[in-house]
Amino acid sequence: MNKKAIVYIRLKDGVLDPQGITIQRAILNMGYDAVSSVRSGKFFELEVSGDGGKVEEQIQDICRKLLANPVIEKFTVEYEK
Amino acid sequence: MNKKAIVYIRLKDGVLDPQGITIQRAILNMGYDAVSSVRSGKFFELEVSGDGGKVEEQIQDICRKLLANPVIEKFTVEYEK
Repeated sequence: MNKKAIVYIRLKDGVLDPQGITIQRAILNMGYDAVSSVRSGKFFELEVSGDGGKVEEQIQDICRKLLANPVIEKFTVEYEK
Repeated sequence: MNKKAIVYIRLKDGVLDPQGITIQRAILNMGYDAVSSVRSGKFFELEVSGDGGKVEEQIQDICRKLLANPVIEKFTVEYEK
């Protein structure tokens, strides 16, 4: 069965996010007052196929070993049909 | 009212995604067979406050002018309480 796995990668709480800070400063400098903080993250959309349990195990492995840096990042996975 | 705006930025369809291609190749080289394609994207979590309509207008402006490159990227915004 084909489906889509979306892996979201965020910095752990407490890890400094210089990109977010820079963007927040730029937003203020542009004159917008609605935004009080910015955190940046990334995501990967994976087309996956195969047996549900085995696929989810592979995705967890791939996240831990390849996509996320476990020292400073955390990840979550969502599945879409 | 405080809420969170999450801005998702994806490459437009048809725009080459070298990071996604490299990751897909790495996944294959690691011996995993479940993943047939990878597309990369980024997101920004913005803490926002103020009147709903005005805030959403500011966020749209910020996306167009600062966060996304409209030549190759598209963006979507979701709001969370």
